[in-house]
Amino acid sequence: MGRKNKADHDGIAPGLVVKTKKRLIVASGSSHPELAAAVARELGTELAPTEHRTFASGEILTRFEISVRGGDIFLIQSFGPPVNEWMMELLIMLDAAKRASAKRITVVAPYYPYSRQDKKGRGREPISARLVADLFKTAGADRVMSVDLHAAQIQGFFDGPVDHLFAKPVLLQHFQDTLSAEDREKLTVVSPDTGRVRVADQWSDSLGAPLAIIHKRRDPNVANQVTVNEIVGKVEGRVCLLVDDMIDTGGTIVKAAQALKADGAERVIVAATHAVFSDPAVERLQDAAIDEVVVTDTLPLPAEKQFPGLTILPIAPLLARAIHEVFEDGSVTSMFDGAA
Amino acid sequence: MGRKNKADHDGIAPGLVVKTKKRLIVASGSSHPELAAAVARELGTELAPTEHRTFASGEILTRFEISVRGGDIFLIQSFGPPVNEWMMELLIMLDAAKRASAKRITVVAPYYPYSRQDKKGRGREPISARLVADLFKTAGADRVMSVDLHAAQIQGFFDGPVDHLFAKPVLLQHFQDTLSAEDREKLTVVSPDTGRVRVADQWSDSLGAPLAIIHKRRDPNVANQVTVNEIVGKVEGRVCLLVDDMIDTGGTIVKAAQALKADGAERVIVAATHAVFSDPAVERLQDAAIDEVVVTDTLPLPAEKQFPGLTILPIAPLLARAIHEVFEDGSVTSMFDGAA
Amino acid sequence: MGRKNKADHDGIAPGLVVKTKKRLIVASGSSHPELAAAVARELGTELAPTEHRTFASGEILTRFEISVRGGDIFLIQSFGPPVNEWMMELLIMLDAAKRASAKRITVVAPYYPYSRQDKKGRGREPISARLVADLFKTAGADRVMSVDLHAAQIQGFFDGPVDHLFAKPVLLQHFQDTLSAEDREKLTVVSPDTGRVRVADQWSDSLGAPLAIIHKRRDPNVANQVTVNEIVGKVEGRVCLLVDDMIDTGGTIVKAAQALKADGAERVIVAATHAVFSDPAVERLQDAAIDEVVVTDTLPLPAEKQFPGLTILPIAPLLARAIHEVFEDGSVTSMFDGAA
Amino acid sequence: MGRKNKADHDGIAPGLVVKTKKRLIVASGSSHPELAAAVARELGTELAPTEHRTFASGEILTRFEISVRGGDIFLIQSFGPPVNEWMMELLIMLDAAKRASAKRITVVAPYYPYSRQDKKGRGREPISARLVADLFKTAGADRVMSVDLHAAQIQGFFDGPVDHLFAKPVLLQHFQDTLSAEDREKLTVVSPDTGRVRVADQWSDSLGAPLAIIHKRRDPNVANQVTVNEIVGKVEGRVCLLVDDMIDTGGTIVKAAQALKADGAERVIVAATHAVFSDPAVERLQDAAIDEVVVTDTLPLPAEKQFPGLTILPIAPLLARAIHEVFEDGSVTSMFDGAA
Amino acid sequence: MGRKNKADHDGIAPGLVVKTKKRLIVASGSSHPELAAAVARELGTELAPTEHRTFASGEILTRFEISVRGGDIFLIQSFGPPVNEWMMELLIMLDAAKRASAKRITVVAPYYPYSRQDKKGRGREPISARLVADLFKTAGADRVMSVDLHAAQIQGFFDGPVDHLFAKPVLLQHFQDTLSAEDREKLTVVSPDTGRVRVADQWSDSLGAPLAIIHKRRDPNVANQVTVNEIVGKVEGRVCLLVDDMIDTGGTIVKAAQALKADGAERVIVAATHAVFSDPAVERLQDAAIDEVVVTDTLPLPAEKQFPGLTILPIAPLLARAIHEVFEDGSVTSMFDGAA
Amino acid sequence: MGRKNKADHDGIAPGLVVKTKKRLIVASGSSHPELAAAVARELGTELAPTEHRTFASGEILTRFEISVRGGDIFLIQSFGPPVNEWMMELLIMLDAAKRASAKRITVVAPYYPYSRQDKKGRGREPISARLVADLFKTAGADRVMSVDLHAAQIQGFFDGPVDHLFAKPVLLQHFQDTLSAEDREKLTVVSPDTGRVRVADQWSDSLGAPLAIIHKRRDPNVANQVTVNEIVGKVEGRVCLLVDDMIDTGGTIVKAAQALKADGAERVIVAATHAVFSDPAVERLQDAAIDEVVVTDTLPLPAEKQFPGLTILPIAPLLARAIHEVFEDGSVTSMFDGAA
Repeated sequence: MGRKNKADHDGIAPGLVVKTKKRLIVASGSSHPELAAAVARELGTELAPTEHRTFASGEILTRFEISVRGGDIFLIQSFGPPVNEWMMELLIMLDAAKRASAKRITVVAPYYPYSRQDKKGRGREPISARLVADLFKTAGADRVMSVDLHAAQIQGFFDGPVDHLFAKPVLLQHFQDTLSAEDREKLTVVSPDTGRVRVADQWSDSLGAPLAIIHKRRDPNVANQVTVNEIVGKVEGRVCLLVDDMIDTGGTIVKAAQALKADGAERVIVAATHAVFSDPAVERLQDAAIDEVVVTDTLPLPAEKQFPGLTILPIAPLLARAIHEVFEDGSVTSMFDGAA
Repeated sequence: MGRKNKADHDGIAPGLVVKTKKRLIVASGSSHPELAAAVARELGTELAPTEHRTFASGEILTRFEISVRGGDIFLIQSFGPPVNEWMMELLIMLDAAKRASAKRITVVAPYYPYSRQDKKGRGREPISARLVADLFKTAGADRVMSVDLHAAQIQGFFDGPVDHLFAKPVLLQHFQDTLSAEDREKLTVVSPDTGRVRVADQWSDSLGAPLAIIHKRRDPNVANQVTVNEIVGKVEGRVCLLVDDMIDTGGTIVKAAQALKADGAERVIVAATHAVFSDPAVERLQDAAIDEVVVTDTLPLPAEKQFPGLTILPIAPLLARAIHEVFEDGSVTSMFDGAA
Repeated sequence: MGRKNKADHDGIAPGLVVKTKKRLIVASGSSHPELAAAVARELGTELAPTEHRTFASGEILTRFEISVRGGDIFLIQSFGPPVNEWMMELLIMLDAAKRASAKRITVVAPYYPYSRQDKKGRGREPISARLVADLFKTAGADRVMSVDLHAAQIQGFFDGPVDHLFAKPVLLQHFQDTLSAEDREKLTVVSPDTGRVRVADQWSDSLGAPLAIIHKRRDPNVANQVTVNEIVGKVEGRVCLLVDDMIDTGGTIVKAAQALKADGAERVIVAATHAVFSDPAVERLQDAAIDEVVVTDTLPLPAEKQFPGLTILPIAPLLARAIHEVFEDGSVTSMFDGAA
Repeated sequence: MGRKNKADHDGIAPGLVVKTKKRLIVASGSSHPELAAAVARELGTELAPTEHRTFASGEILTRFEISVRGGDIFLIQSFGPPVNEWMMELLIMLDAAKRASAKRITVVAPYYPYSRQDKKGRGREPISARLVADLFKTAGADRVMSVDLHAAQIQGFFDGPVDHLFAKPVLLQHFQDTLSAEDREKLTVVSPDTGRVRVADQWSDSLGAPLAIIHKRRDPNVANQVTVNEIVGKVEGRVCLLVDDMIDTGGTIVKAAQALKADGAERVIVAATHAVFSDPAVERLQDAAIDEVVVTDTLPLPAEKQFPGLTILPIAPLLARAIHEVFEDGSVTSMFDGAA
Repeated sequence: MGRKNKADHDGIAPGLVVKTKKRLIVASGSSHPELAAAVARELGTELAPTEHRTFASGEILTRFEISVRGGDIFLIQSFGPPVNEWMMELLIMLDAAKRASAKRITVVAPYYPYSRQDKKGRGREPISARLVADLFKTAGADRVMSVDLHAAQIQGFFDGPVDHLFAKPVLLQHFQDTLSAEDREKLTVVSPDTGRVRVADQWSDSLGAPLAIIHKRRDPNVANQVTVNEIVGKVEGRVCLLVDDMIDTGGTIVKAAQALKADGAERVIVAATHAVFSDPAVERLQDAAIDEVVVTDTLPLPAEKQFPGLTILPIAPLLARAIHEVFEDGSVTSMFDGAA
Repeated sequence: MGRKNKADHDGIAPGLVVKTKKRLIVASGSSHPELAAAVARELGTELAPTEHRTFASGEILTRFEISVRGGDIFLIQSFGPPVNEWMMELLIMLDAAKRASAKRITVVAPYYPYSRQDKKGRGREPISARLVADLFKTAGADRVMSVDLHAAQIQGFFDGPVDHLFAKPVLLQHFQDTLSAEDREKLTVVSPDTGRVRVADQWSDSLGAPLAIIHKRRDPNVANQVTVNEIVGKVEGRVCLLVDDMIDTGGTIVKAAQALKADGAERVIVAATHAVFSDPAVERLQDAAIDEVVVTDTLPLPAEKQFPGLTILPIAPLLARAIHEVFEDGSVTSMFDGAA
């Protein structure tokens, strides 16, 4: 036996077919609202109004104050301390956006959390950078955008598209604008340790400058295996550009700078994308061995983390352009001449 | 060795970029076609024609008679008896819609099945309300819409957006239209048991009326622990409004009404969203202790389930408005002043 | 800063290492308790006690009355009418077993539901046999066991191990025991339609008997395209063994038998694994053209579905042996000489 | 063409079949190590040694210092402040345990985090309690154990077995041991608000005592809708037992106690499972209206959170017994006479 | 404490709402570029430029040379030898398309790989056709399109929409154009074995021609059970149309043709969709018993695989029309009068 | 209404509780059967007999010839050319093992395929190493074991435990056994490019030898940007140990060796784990600049790939020990002093 719901013709009145629109929504977590506001400004819009509450018990609640239904939403959160607080806040925002029927959700994490835990260093360790990617996915993220991942392989941790942006053009432009021709002649790019030589190599290529490497080596002639900073390459009389993806406590960088100066370097300039600046980085970076520090604002840098000789370059224009390309189905790759 | 598929310029002829449209499709299972038709009418459209067959073996087959490719489809099924038949029919319709390339599929379940099995009452019991949510998802549902879930936590059982609608505005409007000023003065909101006090509390708030509670208690003075309906609060001379989310066999409600009358209540009015009306509800609800019963038509109420003193309010306008908001990327929340 | 939970040696007292045991638990849904009991008996155990309730609203509740924690549980449910009721009951039992911490759950579905909806016959149809496999998985099934699937491809619908059992050895044994040498000489295996010829071919092989096929063909010489049952192959004077995996309403089978008798067949015997026997199968199968019907009890056959000339072979020994092999990590394949 | 790896007989030397053992491993996060140690002690074992580091950047690292390969591991973490720190720590421990080849991982969360965000109160809110369950699952949890979930429906949020334990037997035993017969005669169980009446009802049943309810109601006679605490039920001259699942800032409880005293209650005793005790709970609970507070130690209660009149009952025996039942494939349900 | 991101009105500038467009992208793997180019041509577009590299190690790399962000991409790959190379290439293209933010990805596999491994023939065999469907899904496919699947059940192997196209209209048209009226009078449709009778039956129906079947049977009168090709049905003096979904090595087909000629068939025409033509098919198909072979170009047929008597019909128009219907949200079903 | 399946006591006869055993099964794909056989030998067992067929169409079929039900199965496949063939074969074996009810399946891939495609080098590229991990998982792998992954982050690509083994102890032992004291004094460890400095650094540490780096740099003084191999560090008169994880075509290595010799290196020894040796590696490695090449047999090295000066160290003992630890729930980490 059967039953049919009958209809004339094709059963659907023409009035119920509508043209599809899409809406760009930019919202911010609590970690770096200045950056998020700058990104919105660059895009010619404003941040979506949100409510963030922290209860006495430490639990937090976030809520979108406007409808995000059907929206193409970009949630901006960067991951300085307290990183775990910002993680949970972002996950909760993702859950809220997903349940509020956002059409597509992109996590914009200018600095990716737990990026250094990208492999097991010893047995029974976590791979927290992969965990973070899975947590983003579970909570509702469809896509991730980040700047200068500690390891490019982290792109592969997320099960979906990752837009990996590079701050190098921003930093390079700064040096092209500020370095004298004489300085550029004397420039040597230096990797502060053996794990980051590839990055220094790329800078060396872009600047047409030679490469040097700081190599921590246990001194076999000394008891208790004290490690010494051995310099591989020539630095005497050179303007040394120490490049790294991030500066955390600054320990490696300042020791590298001291070793360079001890070997006769004329000047030492430090360039890094992410200014984590955990204690006692600010103190260390003011060491006499370092002449200049150049970073971007992927992480918030309040007044007490700023010091003479520090230059902060804005990352918002880069993020805004990438968001625009993603929203408009353009090309992020074309922003970097094919890379990414 | 490499091979390239070459193309001029960007390889894609302009004619193959088209503007996107979206199409609203409303279809109905076999459980409550009158409601589905009313919803379609409110939306200014018709139900998508479908074929429903039940074979001699009891297996069923459903089929869409028009193309649903790319459509935004809302499948309306309510879950009165035979509930398991309607469940399987809906799951099969979901499978058909998914395989027919519908773009987005929303289950519209005005009355959510198995909503009372929302936790384990004893060890080794199922949590069938969660199971139902997972079955919806597995069969192809992207979203769920329902009215007055037995527990609001059921929203959290589905892994995706749930639009939780409230019938209270519909019911309240009825009482504002029909109760005399004198009656409203004497009104007391009564919860029929201790598990639903929160709901009664909200009605009490909306109506500015005091609250009373029926409390089933085992009488310690009587052997075999007979339970007695103890009334917490004052009901003598009052117009008692017994509110609940659903009326199933009516046992709790009629005993509550009798207890209220025994304690001197002047009148007893029963209000509920879902009229399950399983046997012997219809008989019980005609008890002298009950003066009036007001429900909505989230479930079908054939002539034999109707009786004097029963008022049935139409739920289709509420569902239609919510579907319209979802289709147009509007706001369902705004329908209820921020709740939902 | 770091914190360590210290421990002597390896931190784990020896007393907390225990040998692992496994426990076989056989439980039954409500569809075919006699078969489940017979299986348990064959295994030398009893059915796990369960509670099955059907509420007035049509919703059902199942509960295990003993602990199934850590158990290797086999849930037996067959799928005669009302098939949707039995489906939901089984899904609910799966959910209860999963949440009660069963270690491994096997669905034993001697007759697999919706097995004939194994492909899309027309556009916008469901593939319900795949849906069923997904529902089993979602609700908690780790494995499936079934007998004579309508299409062997259904094994591939389930994302996990499927033990596909064959009733042919049971049926063949019956004919070897009961057919006279003279009958066996005259035996022709007949496929009732063109979609089941492979099965008949296998029987033809096992019995060393020739093959014939009933071919429904639209008669081009007659208006309105009446279909005629054309016999491909020789049946005059033969003992015809009509084989199929199931008998539902019996329409195809009885027409095939009549055609065979019309063409001079001496006798017509029908053999099938699954006796669905939907109305009016029982009436039809008592047609004069059919001399004998042999089936198994994968589906319940109450007294009113039995009739003279019907032989019912027990399937419980086969199921019990397969369950035993699965529980003991033996080989199900070896039960069928490599097939399965 | 084919190739075969040949082998004698069945290809597997007997020496490579070994009996399976299982190993119980109890480990602790950093939130409540005293409780974890007490649980291990009750089980007759020690905590698995683990390393917990917090880097200057706020990122954390955990590591198991013994092999957990093949182990049945229980990770104990409770969720007082800083709750987000403990969440990320637990997720990271889960990831480490999963990647270290633990056989089964159970999260033991005596107090479940974000349990009050179990539904959407308003539109575009998250359902964080469901999110937490999904995060547990994603990070590697196979099972969850918790005590007195804020809503029993949270069991349904986790896709797997949840052992839901009840502290009521522990608390009840305390009152049976300490209340005089006279006090028990005068006992009234009170729900501090309308959302928790069911719990109070169950206590009322267990103690054979009447029930009262505190009902916050907007006073329609006063401008600006001040809410008043209205008491539904009789409390004059009674010993009032205010029961709730948790005490957070204590605001509701202390207002309830004051209202009870104002209505003539002789004494007010507060009983709750979870002592969240966020500021200013400790101060509030020392109000003259409260005579006694009884809680368990599901959350850490350092000296500064303790005060005269506070009784803390140990929850470790209950957790240890449940872990033992789970490890040994016993029955957790039997610990609570069928509930759970 | 709370924080709010404020915004005027609704927080979103009107300029950031844009109309949605969709872009059709057709790309090809390396297996059958001529077919892909023909499909693009039919659609009025060109293939998206892609780079395909095979390294010396055998690993391959594919890359899209234009942005596919937001595109509706159809990846065309057919699966002749080396089939495993083409499988991995397609999976890698899917991964690249997914990570490059394609909006929807459809695998167009005119000939579905491993389609004959659609069930377990013996114990411990794989079901590779299901595996292939799962691999497609994992790598990023949202949808699959294929022609004449070996078993229609394979549609159910993929967890999503499958557009199953039929080449029968293309082949039928050819015979309607080329067979004389006299030939059509004498036409008999023949199934080459008992497993494909259903297909022959459908052809028989479409052509109004009788049916015959080749039945491989072990001869019980001969030692070592030599199988003989027994013909069920009448073929003497008939024009026999042997139909199958594919021709692989041609063994079955040529033996069938010889048996037909031996039984007096006047002519033997072979029709099949997929010309796998593995060695020694080309040699065998030129056997005297076969008068004509008609296939489509779902698989590449280089010059050395072509021979006199072979007709190759183009399949690109069918694929192009189906892709057009899918892209435009039209109906693929309507292309086949309701089937599919 | 309810129904109960009754049972005495606890319903389960004691005879149906059995002690659990586990069975180690080692099986091999077709890529490197000698290695698999050696591993089995080391474990004191034999390879499980399997059938491998390649059809004329290029499709393959694998089958286990013994029951693997309940087994702990390790599938050994290494990934030299034809890598895609071995990938599909392994995936098909995984599918067969999963469907044959293996309890746990570990992929043993001594050389992980597509390990160099571990990130997007340019836009719209795949991350094939992640894809491979997902394909393993989808086909049925529970765990992965590999040796010297090209990037340690690949561990994080698999959603489950990865046992990452190191060949360094095996290679180091060889040099400790064969290098004279004089040679060891003169030893310098050299990284062949800037991307592998970390590995060379670890060797430098283990051997107490200084470090040098080959740095490919575009010469800014020459048109067309010819790259030159610049040596960073001192190599004159040194015994240079060039270390890398793999040697593919040998281009980088031989150029590095030539540069070292040009700068005065006394001897050049090459050490690598994986001998991919794609053409023209064998020819190149016999260059005069290279004095010795030491590799392991993670990949097959047939006679035609061997040459004077090549030493092949067996990897089977390492794999066998790790498999033993995994099977016995021991510790793989302890094999490497805490790493892994």
